[in-house]
Amino acid sequence: MNKTVILKSRPLGMLSETNFEVVERPIPEPAAGELLVKNYFASLDPGVRKLLGEPEGYMVPTALGEVLRTNTVGRVLQSRHPDYADGDLVVGTGFLQEVSAFAPGPMTWKIDPKSRIALQSNLGILGAIGLTAYFGLLSVGQPKSGETVLVSGAAGAVGSAVGQIAKIKGCRVVGIAGGAEKTRRLIEEFRFDGAIDYKGKSAEQLTAAIREQCPQGVDVYFENVGGIQLDAALACMNWGGRIPVCGLISEYNRSVPPQPMLNLFNIVAKILRVDGFLSFTYKEEFPAALRELETWVLSGKLVYREHVENGIEAAAATFVTLFTGENRGKTIVKLAEPD
Amino acid sequence: MNKTVILKSRPLGMLSETNFEVVERPIPEPAAGELLVKNYFASLDPGVRKLLGEPEGYMVPTALGEVLRTNTVGRVLQSRHPDYADGDLVVGTGFLQEVSAFAPGPMTWKIDPKSRIALQSNLGILGAIGLTAYFGLLSVGQPKSGETVLVSGAAGAVGSAVGQIAKIKGCRVVGIAGGAEKTRRLIEEFRFDGAIDYKGKSAEQLTAAIREQCPQGVDVYFENVGGIQLDAALACMNWGGRIPVCGLISEYNRSVPPQPMLNLFNIVAKILRVDGFLSFTYKEEFPAALRELETWVLSGKLVYREHVENGIEAAAATFVTLFTGENRGKTIVKLAEPD
Repeated sequence: MNKTVILKSRPLGMLSETNFEVVERPIPEPAAGELLVKNYFASLDPGVRKLLGEPEGYMVPTALGEVLRTNTVGRVLQSRHPDYADGDLVVGTGFLQEVSAFAPGPMTWKIDPKSRIALQSNLGILGAIGLTAYFGLLSVGQPKSGETVLVSGAAGAVGSAVGQIAKIKGCRVVGIAGGAEKTRRLIEEFRFDGAIDYKGKSAEQLTAAIREQCPQGVDVYFENVGGIQLDAALACMNWGGRIPVCGLISEYNRSVPPQPMLNLFNIVAKILRVDGFLSFTYKEEFPAALRELETWVLSGKLVYREHVENGIEAAAATFVTLFTGENRGKTIVKLAEPD
Repeated sequence: MNKTVILKSRPLGMLSETNFEVVERPIPEPAAGELLVKNYFASLDPGVRKLLGEPEGYMVPTALGEVLRTNTVGRVLQSRHPDYADGDLVVGTGFLQEVSAFAPGPMTWKIDPKSRIALQSNLGILGAIGLTAYFGLLSVGQPKSGETVLVSGAAGAVGSAVGQIAKIKGCRVVGIAGGAEKTRRLIEEFRFDGAIDYKGKSAEQLTAAIREQCPQGVDVYFENVGGIQLDAALACMNWGGRIPVCGLISEYNRSVPPQPMLNLFNIVAKILRVDGFLSFTYKEEFPAALRELETWVLSGKLVYREHVENGIEAAAATFVTLFTGENRGKTIVKLAEPD
């Protein structure tokens, strides 16, 4: 049998562990064009939250009783797709279960078994996390050497990678995170130039802190959070600034009421670009980007944290921590020992 | 002497006629590189409101006692610039006064004296208004034939031109305006496919009205207004939609408190572009754009309204009407009879 995490009930507001259940399902039969994969690692992403509510946005929501979709790393047990062979190591958008059948999509690719990078990192810095940071910052944000880049959610997996890539590109980098430990980590571990603790700060205090840390103004604001962090950043943008909008995590659970936005006018006054993006728009450039990310990782220029929980039974409780600020870098569940 | 409109006091909230004064100033001496111009027409633009408050955005604010800057049409009395001759008809960023000296900038050009279009229209459909509609819609909005384009401030000078250009490009066009007369005009005079009266509508009612008029969703939302109109439009955007942000007139006077924005998450979920723009970014393309606009005007595909007030003494009272919904198309003050 095949342990599988299903959606048991739709979250109302804040997600709860009780919205999920681990059940036994039969091993699926791969259809023509599909892969049957034994999953070693599964990624837990805040964006999946949006799949659990009503239909909206770019993905079809998960039905009640249905297995959760997620990115996984595993080995092909049986390939019914011409580009993949039995035994290949793959990253793919599969399911939160021990064995999955799925058709390779834009976020599926083979992993080089000789890579010196840990297998689960293909779900993080060498996977969706690294690619999101890379293309969001470089393609939408277009930072130039000497510019100032501000990052929200900066201690998170994407945010910490964005800041380091911006440093590699010669920018001054300031991060916003919650609490003394995370802001200390921005400076000491991820080598940001400045760090701002948003906790306990009003919009005005946050704006003042950004102005202090970004004396030349903000050229690129990489947005993971939204709410008053977005409004405060809008107040500090330079003329022609770019705001790649990766996520608005403060709005996923509606745990805070939507805030009046005081500084949207700067979109006109400063001629800003405020652009959502999807990394798979850049699918053709993935191989080159992954090579560059691997080079930076191996040279020590790009460091990252992963938080790996053991066992599919831990998945639901771990998922909830993504929204309570407890997580420490990219969060992954280990489903089986790689063989 | 030289009648001149100066800023007498900074507006607090809603603009008032008493913020301005007509005074006599000496005829200026043009410096090297400048033109001395007798002004026939001066443009009154809502965007000038932002010059009257504290420094922010892309322009230096007007000091107290200083003449108001504006776009003018006039004749060169004395050229000290190699590209212009005495007697040339010009559009330029001059001042709200009878005779001005200014250096030609990106929004200065010569007018063909043989054009069949009225001289003052070089401040409107063949000037900043037409260019703003043209480049905002086509360069940022990139509408494709068959797509749905929604326009706020649709009965205004820019909005009505945007809608008609979108029709020329084969789009379904829906406009939002205030009141029965303006919405009737959208359909009958500017040939929009649908019109929505925002007056008296809550954000939910506005969203429902947009959904009804745009059954295929909105691909391009051309934004002049902001506030709940922006929030309602965000709720209705299609995947990959574009929002050229031309103005946020509801926020200029802060007459309405900033609204909580409920639908910003769609920037991520629908991968939207929300981009400010400045038409002078496209300066190199102005001559071709002006030719195309003139062709559309002469063929009757692009109609427009102008409201011309007589005399510099009327300027202040007329300026205030831009913010009270009374205006009827592009608002211009006639300063002298063309000679």
